[in-house]
Amino acid sequence: MIDPYSILFEPLAIGPVVARNRFYQVPHCCGMGHLRPQAHAAMREMKARGGWAVVSTEEAEIHPSSDLSPYAEQRIWDERDIPALRLMTDAVHEHGALAAIELAHNGSHAANLYSRIAPLAVGNMATDIGYSRQARNATKKDLHEFRQWHRAAALRARDAGFDIVYVYAGHRMTLTQQFLLPEFNDRRDEYGGSLENRVRLIRELLEETKEAIGDTCAVAFRFAVDEMRGSDGMQAEEEGRAVVEMLAELPDLWDVNVSDWSNDSITTRYQPDEGYQLPYTSFVKSVTSKPVVSVGKFTSPDKMVSLVKNGIVDFIGAARPSIADPFLPQKIQQGRSDEIRECIGCNICVASDNMGVSIRCTQNPTMGEEWRRGWHPEHIEPKKADASVLIVGGGPAGLESAVQFARRGFLVTLSEAGETLGGRVVAESGLNGLAAWKRVSDIRIYELQQKAGVSIYTSSRLTVENIKEFGADHVVLATGSVWRADGIGRSSRSAVHKLEKIKVLTPDNIMQGELPADGPVLIYDDDQCYLAGVIAEHLAVKRGNITDKGVVNNGIIFVTPANSVSPWMEHTLEQQRIQKSLLELKVEIHTGKQVVSVADGTVELQCIYTDATSNVRADTLIPVTERLPVDALYEPLQQAGVSVELIGDAHAPGLIADAVYSGHLAARGFLADPKAAEAAHFMRELPALD
Amino acid sequence: MIDPYSILFEPLAIGPVVARNRFYQVPHCCGMGHLRPQAHAAMREMKARGGWAVVSTEEAEIHPSSDLSPYAEQRIWDERDIPALRLMTDAVHEHGALAAIELAHNGSHAANLYSRIAPLAVGNMATDIGYSRQARNATKKDLHEFRQWHRAAALRARDAGFDIVYVYAGHRMTLTQQFLLPEFNDRRDEYGGSLENRVRLIRELLEETKEAIGDTCAVAFRFAVDEMRGSDGMQAEEEGRAVVEMLAELPDLWDVNVSDWSNDSITTRYQPDEGYQLPYTSFVKSVTSKPVVSVGKFTSPDKMVSLVKNGIVDFIGAARPSIADPFLPQKIQQGRSDEIRECIGCNICVASDNMGVSIRCTQNPTMGEEWRRGWHPEHIEPKKADASVLIVGGGPAGLESAVQFARRGFLVTLSEAGETLGGRVVAESGLNGLAAWKRVSDIRIYELQQKAGVSIYTSSRLTVENIKEFGADHVVLATGSVWRADGIGRSSRSAVHKLEKIKVLTPDNIMQGELPADGPVLIYDDDQCYLAGVIAEHLAVKRGNITDKGVVNNGIIFVTPANSVSPWMEHTLEQQRIQKSLLELKVEIHTGKQVVSVADGTVELQCIYTDATSNVRADTLIPVTERLPVDALYEPLQQAGVSVELIGDAHAPGLIADAVYSGHLAARGFLADPKAAEAAHFMRELPALD
Repeated sequence: MIDPYSILFEPLAIGPVVARNRFYQVPHCCGMGHLRPQAHAAMREMKARGGWAVVSTEEAEIHPSSDLSPYAEQRIWDERDIPALRLMTDAVHEHGALAAIELAHNGSHAANLYSRIAPLAVGNMATDIGYSRQARNATKKDLHEFRQWHRAAALRARDAGFDIVYVYAGHRMTLTQQFLLPEFNDRRDEYGGSLENRVRLIRELLEETKEAIGDTCAVAFRFAVDEMRGSDGMQAEEEGRAVVEMLAELPDLWDVNVSDWSNDSITTRYQPDEGYQLPYTSFVKSVTSKPVVSVGKFTSPDKMVSLVKNGIVDFIGAARPSIADPFLPQKIQQGRSDEIRECIGCNICVASDNMGVSIRCTQNPTMGEEWRRGWHPEHIEPKKADASVLIVGGGPAGLESAVQFARRGFLVTLSEAGETLGGRVVAESGLNGLAAWKRVSDIRIYELQQKAGVSIYTSSRLTVENIKEFGADHVVLATGSVWRADGIGRSSRSAVHKLEKIKVLTPDNIMQGELPADGPVLIYDDDQCYLAGVIAEHLAVKRGNITDKGVVNNGIIFVTPANSVSPWMEHTLEQQRIQKSLLELKVEIHTGKQVVSVADGTVELQCIYTDATSNVRADTLIPVTERLPVDALYEPLQQAGVSVELIGDAHAPGLIADAVYSGHLAARGFLADPKAAEAAHFMRELPALD
Repeated sequence: MIDPYSILFEPLAIGPVVARNRFYQVPHCCGMGHLRPQAHAAMREMKARGGWAVVSTEEAEIHPSSDLSPYAEQRIWDERDIPALRLMTDAVHEHGALAAIELAHNGSHAANLYSRIAPLAVGNMATDIGYSRQARNATKKDLHEFRQWHRAAALRARDAGFDIVYVYAGHRMTLTQQFLLPEFNDRRDEYGGSLENRVRLIRELLEETKEAIGDTCAVAFRFAVDEMRGSDGMQAEEEGRAVVEMLAELPDLWDVNVSDWSNDSITTRYQPDEGYQLPYTSFVKSVTSKPVVSVGKFTSPDKMVSLVKNGIVDFIGAARPSIADPFLPQKIQQGRSDEIRECIGCNICVASDNMGVSIRCTQNPTMGEEWRRGWHPEHIEPKKADASVLIVGGGPAGLESAVQFARRGFLVTLSEAGETLGGRVVAESGLNGLAAWKRVSDIRIYELQQKAGVSIYTSSRLTVENIKEFGADHVVLATGSVWRADGIGRSSRSAVHKLEKIKVLTPDNIMQGELPADGPVLIYDDDQCYLAGVIAEHLAVKRGNITDKGVVNNGIIFVTPANSVSPWMEHTLEQQRIQKSLLELKVEIHTGKQVVSVADGTVELQCIYTDATSNVRADTLIPVTERLPVDALYEPLQQAGVSVELIGDAHAPGLIADAVYSGHLAARGFLADPKAAEAAHFMRELPALD
């Protein structure tokens, strides 16, 4: 029988280099960059190990006038950056992959907060961070220098061992793209006006990069063909296509996507479809003879085969799927597609970068830990001695822990009080937009079901006595957390006054399927992360008072002490979409307000600025503020001398990613040298003292 | 004659060490920390050179469970941090000062985004960043370990060469302070309940630190005696005093201030008084026999003398004044008090730290540049050959440039088009709350007036021809910028539609004293920094419709696409105060809205989320969006072969700090080796590749 996936493993030339297969990790941020080069090299190396043909860096600043501090992107300012980059190229080459670097100049997106150089842009304009320092118009002399910087960076990239060097115009955050867009470019010189003129800078960079290094390195062009803003922006059918036509044969590879970053990396909450970028990018193959790569959260091997077979793309591009499963190519090649850990599209990876720290992943707890802890996503140290482990709680922490304990060869019993496994990921996946989150439990339940030595019990709530009687060598409590019902949280450590005067539903009640009675419902978000916004959306959709005139007031009221809805979700690039969605669903939003007390039928709000109070009518209050760990079993077991530990939300409530990570850590740490485990907490990369 | 300031130069013992005088640089953040140890050491060294008796670090994380990533605070996690810290202690000792370190554990303020350890707190609670990861309740075992971490850190601090080691409970961001405050502490063990119990952890740390290192190092206690929240928080007259009484003789030094950080580091805009903390802290001397240091933006030598003489404090504490003028002590000692560069209280220093980059200062452009550029605040390389320099424009950039060119010995002509020198700092200082900003021009004008070889002309607007005729060897254009009148800015590159239908005043008009006519005024803030908020406050106060019932609607409307008023000012710790002030002045605030078009008497706003439009009535529009450099002289002069450069806002509009820095840079760079100047742009500290 012919392997149906063999087409994905055919080598393909990209200019002067050859990719071993069709799996291409496009450039993606990771919060490591120039600050954490060893961690960066080890993380990229894992992709090469896992079978990717091309492994790319994040954007690499070519000059201190494109200084993205304090964010940890890549840097190739001068030759002193080469040794750090060489760590990555050597590591990637060792496993037969090509290394690519995305050279970048960020124009007015780079505020140069460290270098203090005046930002350089297509014209005089504000930078896009909220800081009163403007970018200045690039003169002809500046552009001449800029091209020299880019050429010099390309030469350094070659010297650092890269096989593919990018010219980059995308994500609404690059100088080259700003030249391209009439919105920004009102120049009257040969770089402004006609598309030919606006594309000139890109053409020059492509030509000059090829001239400089094209004999040994491929020159790729990453280009956002559509801004997804309709006629307000570049469109794939209009100038997007025209640009591809103009430059068709110039780059050795076209890496095409949509802009801005929030469109390119849209979450499943707002775009569940695999291949959502193809309607915009699929024309490119018909315009150029050069290989094309595009992205779209591809995780289905059959879809991949069809894309390559039908000439839609030559390479399956991936950022997030390669994070969730660095071994995706190898698993397909080895006929183990059912073991692929599918990206859930939550953008916790993106959030790490936006918080300025190393990448993490909800599905893959080893992501970002390759160097610090030496973790491998597929391997874990086998047991050195037999032991039985009882894991109490089958949510994300318990499931991950059970999987890893089982992989190590321990005898695992997983006991879940509820009727089904999955805990909060299953509960939350029932809410509007979060269906993909169930993949976190699905993949783990599937693996546990295959494993010998694993017993699973549901509808099994254990007491201290049960656990003692069970007599496992080690007990892991993954008993989760419950949402507080009293309104205590980040903004106030006092309970809402006279709470007995209103019907209170907690997020747990909602996730268990309880719906508020008719009448106004006030959701109080002091968590400021995703859940309150999701619940508001969920209830508004459920009530669904959609009339001929659109959605009418459906009695959902959203109150938060923050200045916007779900502000933390700016890190996942979702905040704008969340607030838009609630507004369109006619949710009544009150920002900058705390809930302080209740009277019959009304809730009193207090302005966080002035302490002025106001009242809103509500029959139900849903406080989404803080959680309490469910940890009552811990103390008695410990006092009874049982070997016991708390993990996940039962230890410290957090994101699902935190729970999975905690479960993984527990399994890795069991019977390990405690000094080595402790030492990993202290691992970091220190500045050289020269 | 007896030197009136001699009392400030009397040595004083602090436990086992002796401070040479009474000038004490208390711990302050600087955005360098563990990421930039060489820059940090050089910056602190400059304070020691300038005569400070004690030079402190910023807060130093004692353990990875207090990981403030991505912020660049100090670290003393383990012995690998010692070499970086030793750079600082050696540098400080070389100039006869004592080095102090502020050991810190930040409890629920540390989100541990890099280390991923569950945050540790006095109870289960949200962290104070908007992230759904909670801190967990510290068990007795945790507290035992915490004390060991603190003790080990103290020993490392001693080994790194520190003379003074802090125990720190302040700024509402430390674990110890959270134990102290009933608001956070609801424990039922011996660490909760009575004040004696809540202070227990601090007492233990003080005792254990003294026991560990007290024979050779002084142990200081930094304590916020008052939260400035009235009876909602700790008060100096109540528990604040009681704590001092309980621990009176335990530390070797009391470093007392108010909490939180926005109160301790309040800006002049909201608190112009020198010594504003004394009403809270002055009791401390009467309770303890140990030396006391306190802060309050002290810059007046006479005030300092009176404080020490009257036994209010033993040491003059300073953070911001030591940043604005590292040589403040030396200047007082040498009878050059009139040369002190007074802190203007703008908190640009604080903002740097909050942005995660190296410290900068409006008054002192060399701050943060000691290592990278080798700049000294008092010295600049003298000219090697004669040259005459014409500086066009007497704003902050032109003035600073003139001062530094003159210090180098060049013949300087400063020509200002306006009637007075000062440019934008004088213009802005006429607005509500910004009076102190005039210090930027005052100190420079004063210095220029003393200097030989400096000619100053006001009311002198120069043309290209004038400048060519003048025949200077070098021309520096510091001609500033003007605010756009068309609404183009960060959120839109299209002008407001039908702008001719409304009276438009620019911020420049307002600063020139023009007031809008009666009727509603719409201030449109797309700058999102300070100016629009200041103008709103200024106009509201001017209109001053204050009645028996408080302020009434005064027709000032504030519209911004941001989600809050002046969001960038969170970095200066002012955002909360600004929005409160506008609300109390009854300014009508619309957030999340763009101004898109004008009709007769109304302005159309568009929601940034949904594009829905709404109208507000307004007779005057004040767009505060973006600035245009005034650079028309540049091209013709350059084409005429004149040696000319643009600086300050004329180069790229920015903060006053940016303008001063730009002016300084121009003078340093004149006739300097261009390679060396270029190389400084690339200077940074790289991670070691071990």
